[in-house]
Amino acid sequence: MEEKKIVARKLQGFWELQPEQQVIFENMLDKIKDVFKRHCFLPLDTPVMELSEILLAKSGGDIDKEIYRFVKGSTDACLRYDLTVPLARFVAMNQNTISFPFKRFQIGKAYRGERPQKGRFREFYQCDADIIGDGELSLVNDAECVKLYVDIFKELALPVQVEISSRKVLYGLVSGLNEEDKFANIATALDKIDKIGESGVCELLQQLEIEQSKIKVLVDFVKINGNAQALENAQKLCSDSAFLDGVSQLKEIDGYLKAMGLGEEDYKFNFAIIRGHNYYTGTVFEAYLKNNRSAGAIGGGGRYDDLAGYFTDRKLPGVGMSIGMSRLFEILQQTSQQVSNFCKCAIIPLGETLQQCLALAGYLQQNLVAAEVYAENKSFKSKMKEANKRNVPFVVIIGADEVKEGKYTLKDMTTSQQQTLSKEEILNILG
Amino acid sequence: MEEKKIVARKLQGFWELQPEQQVIFENMLDKIKDVFKRHCFLPLDTPVMELSEILLAKSGGDIDKEIYRFVKGSTDACLRYDLTVPLARFVAMNQNTISFPFKRFQIGKAYRGERPQKGRFREFYQCDADIIGDGELSLVNDAECVKLYVDIFKELALPVQVEISSRKVLYGLVSGLNEEDKFANIATALDKIDKIGESGVCELLQQLEIEQSKIKVLVDFVKINGNAQALENAQKLCSDSAFLDGVSQLKEIDGYLKAMGLGEEDYKFNFAIIRGHNYYTGTVFEAYLKNNRSAGAIGGGGRYDDLAGYFTDRKLPGVGMSIGMSRLFEILQQTSQQVSNFCKCAIIPLGETLQQCLALAGYLQQNLVAAEVYAENKSFKSKMKEANKRNVPFVVIIGADEVKEGKYTLKDMTTSQQQTLSKEEILNILG
Repeated sequence: MEEKKIVARKLQGFWELQPEQQVIFENMLDKIKDVFKRHCFLPLDTPVMELSEILLAKSGGDIDKEIYRFVKGSTDACLRYDLTVPLARFVAMNQNTISFPFKRFQIGKAYRGERPQKGRFREFYQCDADIIGDGELSLVNDAECVKLYVDIFKELALPVQVEISSRKVLYGLVSGLNEEDKFANIATALDKIDKIGESGVCELLQQLEIEQSKIKVLVDFVKINGNAQALENAQKLCSDSAFLDGVSQLKEIDGYLKAMGLGEEDYKFNFAIIRGHNYYTGTVFEAYLKNNRSAGAIGGGGRYDDLAGYFTDRKLPGVGMSIGMSRLFEILQQTSQQVSNFCKCAIIPLGETLQQCLALAGYLQQNLVAAEVYAENKSFKSKMKEANKRNVPFVVIIGADEVKEGKYTLKDMTTSQQQTLSKEEILNILG
Repeated sequence: MEEKKIVARKLQGFWELQPEQQVIFENMLDKIKDVFKRHCFLPLDTPVMELSEILLAKSGGDIDKEIYRFVKGSTDACLRYDLTVPLARFVAMNQNTISFPFKRFQIGKAYRGERPQKGRFREFYQCDADIIGDGELSLVNDAECVKLYVDIFKELALPVQVEISSRKVLYGLVSGLNEEDKFANIATALDKIDKIGESGVCELLQQLEIEQSKIKVLVDFVKINGNAQALENAQKLCSDSAFLDGVSQLKEIDGYLKAMGLGEEDYKFNFAIIRGHNYYTGTVFEAYLKNNRSAGAIGGGGRYDDLAGYFTDRKLPGVGMSIGMSRLFEILQQTSQQVSNFCKCAIIPLGETLQQCLALAGYLQQNLVAAEVYAENKSFKSKMKEANKRNVPFVVIIGADEVKEGKYTLKDMTTSQQQTLSKEEILNILG
């Protein structure tokens, strides 16, 4: 029966890795999760869909053209576009049963129907950790988020330095200059200093009709950059009480970070860190690769006043951090040592030794070594080629002679060295 | 500013666990994944959406009312309802680059818009492992799937026995009886023996107008149940060559399972295992909890002739196994020892010792112990209560006196025993 075939293709802009890449991705996920668990964050796994009224609460029900929306029977739902709205919905729904401070992490897919382009996906992973307080939340938690970055990226062998600032300090300064009406625009202008430089920022501020003397203070402010001493210097810049209060909060966080064992190589203060979202109300931070700051932030986050204001009157302040997963994965792929397979050992029969191969695989697996038998009806040579192509570090060859002696040939695929060994000796090397 | 609040609720029928349950779920996932990795299966993570023409290939484009479908601009897509069609699409798309046999596992969500009811979800986890061959595929792989069940459920401390049969044997028998035209109906009838018993099945077969003598053979067949000896007995039942061929395939699989180190407690042959799907063409199997067979199968799978026939002419036979995740999770929740938190140790300051608490947390985390500081502005008593409520196994209390001596109080929350120890001694106990 001849049928017309359908061309196998996937949706454009939807992330799908080849299995060898997926191995690297899974290893990355495992390491990130291990750190979250070690910091006692709880896992959350919300549905990929939410009711439209929940997801569109922020926009007052307006549907953004980037959002995937379904209407099916009486169900009006959207695919989530981030993990923050689902967290707010979850916390509001379960506020009477969860324990505060509520520390949760979630790594999951989110959806935005924008035109696909390089580095932009319609389906993409988000990785968020947040700590939500009930009414109030200690600044220890802001420090905890900074520590998460340091620990996660150490685990990934990609050390970062976290750069810390505060929206509160910035707001205090702007307010001390009597320009609070223009706060959002000033923040947007200052945020561009890395891109357009000092003169570009000055120009933008002039367009906002801000006096030259004030512009100087603002530019001096975003140029403050360094360790605890920088905070001391900042204090001289402005006598506004909100400003000084913000600086002393940063000093408090500095104390916590030192107590946690972090050093100057792990974090610094940089008042050019603004974060675009007006959502943030206190501490803000971004993580940069130590050996490649110019690649841009690999994660960011900060403190917000109220997580779930659309859903509840209860005040739930929080602080959160997120990691740019696609970006991180791209970097890991470039730096990874070609580990593209979980397999530690391929076992290849030479002659009628399949039974013995299966027994050895069972023995190794039982002892936590990832092993598999190449059992298909193919030549020995093609199987050795396959092991090589799959980048398997060790091969065991079992021939009829070896079976008699209870010894097997272990080949190290990196050095091409071969040894004849018992199964216990093989385990010793692979285990 | 007083705003009207939106009621926080989630979509009905969409799975969402409380964080404490999610911890159990994550531990379950980790254990399952570890076994797949140890067996050298590669991970796959396909998008949750597929083009409608792909997902509906099977039905010739007819849309099933249970499927969530979007039309957005030029995109016509559906949420996946299983992980098998995406696998077929992936393999067909990448057939020239992937290595066969292709061993992949995928654990992910799937969607069916049916009316929610107990144990039935609109969004649910599927867990599949499949081995796909190019043209042909050794029966070792059928044995490998059986071994996966045994290893996974040992890891989960829920030992299973896998019951194995073969659609090929059944087809051979029916064909030997000259009733191949009625094969599908006969299979459906025999499949019901667990539910409606021997007499019920006889009645159904009579309704199919099958002679009494043939009914006896069919019923004798599905009653065959046991170890390798059962296969010897089965051979006497029919002399059809397809039948005998099927039995000898099962014997071959039996040999592989023994070589892999499995015993009679791990698997048996049971010709009452039919599997509903006509998709299966060879070996079929189901896994049952040893201590609760009557709870029904916790997983099942089998051999199929051709994975991706809708998309390619290339013959890609496969064998796969899947695990019923909602069911399994329900059982694990009942049997789990209340491990509802990753946290091994809560650290509670008594007086002004927050710095020392943070330092100890950093030290423990660095040494892979999950620890956290209860830093909020609450009473010591309420923090001890909280640790108890969160089911944390150990608490360290750091008071001002302890700081001077460099020793801390470790409380075992299970026994209520307290000891005064150095941080190294604490690590020794918790590590």
